[in-house]
Amino acid sequence: MSLVLHGYWRSSAAYRVRIALALKGLEYQPVSHDLRGGAQHAPAYRALAPQALVPALEADGQVLTQSLAILEWLEETHPAPALLPAGAGERAIVRAMALCVACDIHPLNNLRVLQVLKHDLGLDEAARDRWVARWIGEGFAALETMVARHGGQYCFGDEPGLADCCLVPQIYNARRFGVDLEPYPRLVAIDGACQALAAFAAAAPENQPDAPGPDA
Amino acid sequence: MSLVLHGYWRSSAAYRVRIALALKGLEYQPVSHDLRGGAQHAPAYRALAPQALVPALEADGQVLTQSLAILEWLEETHPAPALLPAGAGERAIVRAMALCVACDIHPLNNLRVLQVLKHDLGLDEAARDRWVARWIGEGFAALETMVARHGGQYCFGDEPGLADCCLVPQIYNARRFGVDLEPYPRLVAIDGACQALAAFAAAAPENQPDAPGPDA
Repeated sequence: MSLVLHGYWRSSAAYRVRIALALKGLEYQPVSHDLRGGAQHAPAYRALAPQALVPALEADGQVLTQSLAILEWLEETHPAPALLPAGAGERAIVRAMALCVACDIHPLNNLRVLQVLKHDLGLDEAARDRWVARWIGEGFAALETMVARHGGQYCFGDEPGLADCCLVPQIYNARRFGVDLEPYPRLVAIDGACQALAAFAAAAPENQPDAPGPDA
Repeated sequence: MSLVLHGYWRSSAAYRVRIALALKGLEYQPVSHDLRGGAQHAPAYRALAPQALVPALEADGQVLTQSLAILEWLEETHPAPALLPAGAGERAIVRAMALCVACDIHPLNNLRVLQVLKHDLGLDEAARDRWVARWIGEGFAALETMVARHGGQYCFGDEPGLADCCLVPQIYNARRFGVDLEPYPRLVAIDGACQALAAFAAAAPENQPDAPGPDA
């Protein structure tokens, strides 16, 4: 199967898909769209991905969008190693953790929203950072409780999975915006366990071909 | 199986789950939490649902949160009638449509965000409505393209499914905030087809026991 991943080194949603591809040992061709320059709005890309967001995954000609739909597709087409546990109840818990990040933290803080806050609502950098920290804080507080109930070395038990694919990029974003992570020791520990795995390292923003070099 | 749905008549995410329960012919006991009064923050509810959001579904003692995780759980435990098509590629398309609403439209416009826009950022009602209309407009424009490619009588083909469970509550919200729906004739037609089904009518906000009466 030929896989092409449309993404951007610092896109949190593309980062999730890179982790899953690496966990499943799948090779892919990366195509970078410079979100800062608005490349995702080019007509050719919008024809592929009507929301003009990254990531999009081309798989033998079919174009898949929305990172969680892509992760579920990867799980269905390449079941091993599994990103979801076997039982429906356990799968629901893992998906709820992933959606806590993917619905209730990340979309409030992504680039298009931050641009509106700045250019349309006139928020300065400090107000923007308070906005970001608020939604990360509310979501992480809930996630910390959820992993206390269900987690182990990773978000759910002792194997990395769908929730970790979402948590690690969100922790990366939190650090980028200077959010205090001390209230979430379990999440920080899980992030550390994930970072020690080769799949997560391969997917990290700074290790992508379109990442700026250390002097940039 | 004993099902208890924690919700609120006007919650868009609870509305999704009500539709799915009705499509699958499942009885449930509704428990209402008055979001306007902050009932979802009560310690007893937060112990069940750490994010303090509705919906939550209690199923034989297990508590499920996040509407899309609940919909996937319903699909896995009660497969007929199906909310997702059979093939992985088709399932990915339906999930992408659902996530376009659930990640990129709804979370930007839900109650907790509108409260911050008003009380913390000082937006007046007109500015708030522009904010709401912007994200609904961006998302609906993409969805209109997606249903043109993949839809029929409903979002995907001619059976109602997961994407319709998300679209119809979002159309309800759009009307509530006075968003112009004329640019999205396909979405409006799908909403109309859905509203004609008994399951969608049973799930509608105004038909819930906690909805205010016509004189309220």
